[in-house]
Amino acid sequence: MIMSNAKSSLKIAIAGLGVVGAEVARQVINRSDQLCLAAGVKIQLAAVSARNRSMDRGINLDDIDWHDDAAKLAECDEVDVIVEMIGGSEGVALELVRAALASGKHVVTANKAMIAHHGLELAQLAETNRVNLLFEAAVAGGIPAVKTLREGLSGNDITRVAGILNGTCNFILSTMETTGCDFDEALADAQRLGYAEAEPSFDVDGIDAAHKLTILAAIAFGHQPDFNAVSIQGIRDVSSVDFAYANQLGFRIKLVGVAEPGLMPRMQTCLLPLGSQLAKVNGVLNAVEFHGEPVGSILAVGPGAGGGATSSAVLSDLIDIAVGRGGFPFGQPINTLLDTSAIKNGAWPDNPFYVRLMVVDQPGVLATLTGILNKYAISVEGLLQQGRAPGNAVALVMTTHEAAEINLNRALNEIENLAIVRAKPVAMPILNLDLNK
Amino acid sequence: MIMSNAKSSLKIAIAGLGVVGAEVARQVINRSDQLCLAAGVKIQLAAVSARNRSMDRGINLDDIDWHDDAAKLAECDEVDVIVEMIGGSEGVALELVRAALASGKHVVTANKAMIAHHGLELAQLAETNRVNLLFEAAVAGGIPAVKTLREGLSGNDITRVAGILNGTCNFILSTMETTGCDFDEALADAQRLGYAEAEPSFDVDGIDAAHKLTILAAIAFGHQPDFNAVSIQGIRDVSSVDFAYANQLGFRIKLVGVAEPGLMPRMQTCLLPLGSQLAKVNGVLNAVEFHGEPVGSILAVGPGAGGGATSSAVLSDLIDIAVGRGGFPFGQPINTLLDTSAIKNGAWPDNPFYVRLMVVDQPGVLATLTGILNKYAISVEGLLQQGRAPGNAVALVMTTHEAAEINLNRALNEIENLAIVRAKPVAMPILNLDLNK
Repeated sequence: MIMSNAKSSLKIAIAGLGVVGAEVARQVINRSDQLCLAAGVKIQLAAVSARNRSMDRGINLDDIDWHDDAAKLAECDEVDVIVEMIGGSEGVALELVRAALASGKHVVTANKAMIAHHGLELAQLAETNRVNLLFEAAVAGGIPAVKTLREGLSGNDITRVAGILNGTCNFILSTMETTGCDFDEALADAQRLGYAEAEPSFDVDGIDAAHKLTILAAIAFGHQPDFNAVSIQGIRDVSSVDFAYANQLGFRIKLVGVAEPGLMPRMQTCLLPLGSQLAKVNGVLNAVEFHGEPVGSILAVGPGAGGGATSSAVLSDLIDIAVGRGGFPFGQPINTLLDTSAIKNGAWPDNPFYVRLMVVDQPGVLATLTGILNKYAISVEGLLQQGRAPGNAVALVMTTHEAAEINLNRALNEIENLAIVRAKPVAMPILNLDLNK
Repeated sequence: MIMSNAKSSLKIAIAGLGVVGAEVARQVINRSDQLCLAAGVKIQLAAVSARNRSMDRGINLDDIDWHDDAAKLAECDEVDVIVEMIGGSEGVALELVRAALASGKHVVTANKAMIAHHGLELAQLAETNRVNLLFEAAVAGGIPAVKTLREGLSGNDITRVAGILNGTCNFILSTMETTGCDFDEALADAQRLGYAEAEPSFDVDGIDAAHKLTILAAIAFGHQPDFNAVSIQGIRDVSSVDFAYANQLGFRIKLVGVAEPGLMPRMQTCLLPLGSQLAKVNGVLNAVEFHGEPVGSILAVGPGAGGGATSSAVLSDLIDIAVGRGGFPFGQPINTLLDTSAIKNGAWPDNPFYVRLMVVDQPGVLATLTGILNKYAISVEGLLQQGRAPGNAVALVMTTHEAAEINLNRALNEIENLAIVRAKPVAMPILNLDLNK
């Protein structure tokens, strides 16, 4: 119970009044008294910056100091905290945050791209200037995932972090599974509902989720945040037929980020056992599973995006600053974070795989295929027999025993060139993430 | 990034070396370097107290200052933090914690009974002496439930906290459901596996869970922790037949604590929809659902007990103290916490109910029963028709529409006295906790 903030108010400036920024402004203005109880001081909106000054945001900003140039907010002497809600890993956001930290202002941001790319430099700036750099809103929206890992589980040796970190992808995959529609249709659905951007590649190619995984992995394993040390795969290649096959085999298809000590974090479209905790997280929800010693496994599920959920995370960061709850941005001093050269070379342990081949239904096909797989030390664990269609292409779905991905890829390359194979083979890892079952 | 602790080590004294206390000591000794990274300083075990000095705890405590009288730990000048692992709401534990706080030492405790009964007084002591009183380990074991609510969701107007807060009860209920055994058998199982005490009443009568709910409700709604302002029901009255009936109706039986603003928190054995998040939490796991504005719903699941999970919570509290992360024990200043007189008078809104009656199978029975229910404004929503047994007692299972509990109890009292009714009626509320579905 140490209140290190002796001031009577915490003055904040919000840069960017989009969905989240405007919601934070609304909360700070409309719920001033309640926030003051938790913060110990009044959180006061002192300045804002946004492109469109005339837009109706449902709040009165007439008395607030308005800046057309967001970067100027860093120069407002009376401001204690810059709330950066502009977005983008570079440009104005980065310029503003650098200047704010350098001038001794705390920074709260939802900008996962910026933290994933420049977190090391920015955390160093925060440390040097003895201010907070907080980014709870950058990971898993309303789930306090960063705080859970950095503080709630700080006494643990973390052995794995796994998560569904992009609600857009999870919604698209859930929709494809429940309706049987294809990727483009599910994406259009997500766009119509406001869950996906017009330009969806940051979401569907796994980049947004990989930004978040970069941040979680750095905190979990004490290495430098390094977006280039994450292996990334999106969900564009999943076909609607795979959901039904996966289900028959007892699995569900999800985009899952996994980080383990000493290994390169992976964002991947994979199969999870239907009974596993993450497999049950559907729609736009996010979820993060933390495994550690001595704690065991902790699962957190909640809304991963949207103005409400994200502003909740921003407000909690602001209250932490007001109360004087500090700490290193990544949970330990910058000079103790390891560089990522070691994990870039780490090979993931073998996995079982789901494989779907479109092959001509004729005698001897299975022998040919298993022969090639066998040559690369891939052994078949299970086979889905589909209906016969002699002479025509049919789906041949199999699961493998634990195999090295590099071997599987070699085998599939060879298989793809066979005359009996009529489409590019589809392969996804099967992950069993439940350590405590 | 404010490090308010300028010392080079944090010296702790552990009072009580049972399962959790010994595990904390082991972690502090064996993982010293790793904990130092997160804490910024070395966490040093300076003193201990336990009844049995000769017991082998798998760690070398030879060089540690040993006190036979735990209360004396508060007088050790060099100790910064007392880790109270003795347990019990009164007695030595309370005496030690009072003395420690009064002498300016931080306190970390897993003692839910003490915090539920004396939290107000102790938090006041902590506030007056400007030290931390942290009790993450008192609620939901390894799940950082206290931190999630007090800090992670601090910017929210909390509208509900609901949880499965006692792993022993959840294990017993899960076992009864999956094996069809009765309560005594499931309890014996739990005792054999070390999940239940020889004297199980704290667990199975809902008291332990109610301690935790007391703490969560105080933080969530800004009122004083007051164990006497919690309505408590245990699991002893559940019969194995009810699980099958509940399942046919689409429900699962759970002991669930629910707290809402302005209402007396309730610990109750109830029916949850099979598809709800808490219904899926089985075995010894704990789970807490937080609902709030603007965040929506957050679910956290994890191990609720055991040395590993609980010591994880203790270690995170110690690291918070080392880093200088402070704050009020219940999230806001003691003098702003409301007293509980208002919630003691609040009536819970009406609920649907599950009702099981053992009645003689003869013409006119249903008309008699529904006539009485109707008199008390209870309307039947669904009925489970069991096999016929003319002239003999059969189970008549029904669900009601929303009804006032007081009315239902009056109706069931009248029904119990009918000659056609052969056993005490069983009634449990049906809760639909998923706000965001």
